[in-house]
Amino acid sequence: MTDMIIKNTRPMAGPKADIRIKGGRIAEIGPDIAPQGEPVEDAAGALALPGFVEAHTHLDKSLIGWPWYHNDVGNELLDMIANERAVKKEWGIDPHVQSMRHALQTVAYGATVIRSHVDIDTEGKLRPLEGVMKTAELLSDVVEIETVAFPQSGLMIRDGTTDLMDQAMTMGADVVGGLDPCGVDRDPKGHLDFIFNLAEKHGKPIDIHLHEPGEMGAFSMEMILDRTEALSMAGQVTVSHAFCLGMPDPVRVAGLVERLARNDVRIMTTAPASSEAPAVMQLREAGIKVGAGNDGIRDTWGPYGNGDMLERAKFIGLRNNFRRDTEVALAFDVCSTGGAEAMNVEPPKLEVGARGDVVVVKGESLAHAVVTHAPRHLVVKAGKVTARNGAALTEAP
Amino acid sequence: MTDMIIKNTRPMAGPKADIRIKGGRIAEIGPDIAPQGEPVEDAAGALALPGFVEAHTHLDKSLIGWPWYHNDVGNELLDMIANERAVKKEWGIDPHVQSMRHALQTVAYGATVIRSHVDIDTEGKLRPLEGVMKTAELLSDVVEIETVAFPQSGLMIRDGTTDLMDQAMTMGADVVGGLDPCGVDRDPKGHLDFIFNLAEKHGKPIDIHLHEPGEMGAFSMEMILDRTEALSMAGQVTVSHAFCLGMPDPVRVAGLVERLARNDVRIMTTAPASSEAPAVMQLREAGIKVGAGNDGIRDTWGPYGNGDMLERAKFIGLRNNFRRDTEVALAFDVCSTGGAEAMNVEPPKLEVGARGDVVVVKGESLAHAVVTHAPRHLVVKAGKVTARNGAALTEAP
Repeated sequence: MTDMIIKNTRPMAGPKADIRIKGGRIAEIGPDIAPQGEPVEDAAGALALPGFVEAHTHLDKSLIGWPWYHNDVGNELLDMIANERAVKKEWGIDPHVQSMRHALQTVAYGATVIRSHVDIDTEGKLRPLEGVMKTAELLSDVVEIETVAFPQSGLMIRDGTTDLMDQAMTMGADVVGGLDPCGVDRDPKGHLDFIFNLAEKHGKPIDIHLHEPGEMGAFSMEMILDRTEALSMAGQVTVSHAFCLGMPDPVRVAGLVERLARNDVRIMTTAPASSEAPAVMQLREAGIKVGAGNDGIRDTWGPYGNGDMLERAKFIGLRNNFRRDTEVALAFDVCSTGGAEAMNVEPPKLEVGARGDVVVVKGESLAHAVVTHAPRHLVVKAGKVTARNGAALTEAP
Repeated sequence: MTDMIIKNTRPMAGPKADIRIKGGRIAEIGPDIAPQGEPVEDAAGALALPGFVEAHTHLDKSLIGWPWYHNDVGNELLDMIANERAVKKEWGIDPHVQSMRHALQTVAYGATVIRSHVDIDTEGKLRPLEGVMKTAELLSDVVEIETVAFPQSGLMIRDGTTDLMDQAMTMGADVVGGLDPCGVDRDPKGHLDFIFNLAEKHGKPIDIHLHEPGEMGAFSMEMILDRTEALSMAGQVTVSHAFCLGMPDPVRVAGLVERLARNDVRIMTTAPASSEAPAVMQLREAGIKVGAGNDGIRDTWGPYGNGDMLERAKFIGLRNNFRRDTEVALAFDVCSTGGAEAMNVEPPKLEVGARGDVVVVKGESLAHAVVTHAPRHLVVKAGKVTARNGAALTEAP
């Protein structure tokens, strides 16, 4: 059923109105819309917001549904990578089952679009991607899931990974991933040449994890920009994390931001509290498309996270010292419409003609809904109710 | 009623046990405690944790219960200070009513001890302190509330404030407050000499807000340490926020930390995501007593916060990159036992002889309870149930 009416709601926290969805798209927004036989949902005065966009997560990693994972791993990135491979093997984690649980929890919180990085390494091989792609297919009318082939254990430092990445793209991964060409892979030229060539070969965009801080990150970012320019890939490249944009050198950062904007490179942030991070307002003012994500949730990397993009909007607000209502609204946009624009997928919007992706959430104002990450009353994907009162209607395995 | 048994609980997430409280103190922890006529609460296997300690908040400022405050204030500290004075006056905020609402919400989340800074300025004069002291008295068997006389609008820059501070201490404020002796007050010697003399005169400790970053903050901190040493006030001085301890100069910071430890100066942190902040592990390893607080919640300063010290423990974990279970447990301790030790009040502990301040909360492990800031089943203050299922049993005005 892709026709419905949401009655008695406040679109974007504005005046009360009804929303009619017809054939999966918003057909009408206004007062007192008369039903024409379609199902009617009463929002009881709650806000209607566009569907939430989880633009950076790892659906294959979460340990949701397992007993508590007692974490005593080392703090080095390579410790965590090695530990994760070991636990996955030892516990016999099924990426399909885990991605179903994780995706449906994210839907319960209001997501209608998810971009998931998926580990491609010589141990798990293509099994995680198979699992997440199966989830994407099974949930195709619940949430739009994009997959990124992600060389989590390194590309040049682990023989056989480049072949697997190529196979992953042939299998149907949507985006070519990458990871810290200096910090992890120790070969920035080799790493970046490979992923840009792979993207060109398969005609796919790129989304590269760049945790490298300060000048090292800036160096890698410049090499990414060089290739984006040389291959005319404006609008096709995303840098996730981009911690280096938070380095305390405003002139250096301004130069990078200008060049990112000129090449329409997109930035995905988690607004981390414990590291430098891009200033969201600065990026948006420069015209850069910005998305956000919860990153991995409750996995061997750390115990945090739940898939809630409203809480992520709060974290963006807290990290960026957003106090004004207009600033908090910007943080929300990054977790919804803006995130989809950064992903190059159809952006959810509360306007006639847009896809009927709507989240009904209690709240007095948009900022109020964000800072309390208030209970979700209803989640609607293309006119179909996917979650009610905080619970997904599709059962997770 | 200050006798009770909490049955079927897991103290500190350990094995199942019962807890007997007698005359307000923990009398027995063990399996199958037989009731002797006292009320019995069934924890249904939930965790028992020591009472939470909100060690840095502003009970007189929150706008809880009012319509949403649309914030469009400037980002400068002095803009926010001036805006707050204006809104308080215009709206006719009653500090007693607001502090009741705020304190009871904090209790509902598990607090058994609160330290509240209270504005002392030439506009509100002593009215905020009267209001919060009335709240402290009314709630004396629900939560222990300490007051800090806090010159929010500046001390040396506003004539008449020093007299009011003296009157506030005579009225019964528990602690002498201070604020950014350079950044706000423009007279570090004048400011610090005044508050240390006032503390000596009234025989009270000091808790000074120090937001000043980097070298300016370090300079003010040294002047605080000079006076702590000269007046032999070891154990009597607290620095709240202490952002400067997060400056990126490990040698400079190590020197300050060593001197803070030697003088038993305590640090209160909110673990802010948008500014530098003290590294909690470093402070604890140096032997410094550390507490935490939510700071103001939902006020003219910003829309965030709810009074939940479990969520604050999560923020400490996120800010300090705590991923291991032992690290998350440390973050929790700062929000409970450790916070009380930093305040010099009796620390809640789950051991025989300790005051019966217990929070029953769902969770598989301590870290699980922290990262999900799971629902509170029961809050107990000195053997008396103060909140049940997330709601305080005392009604707020």
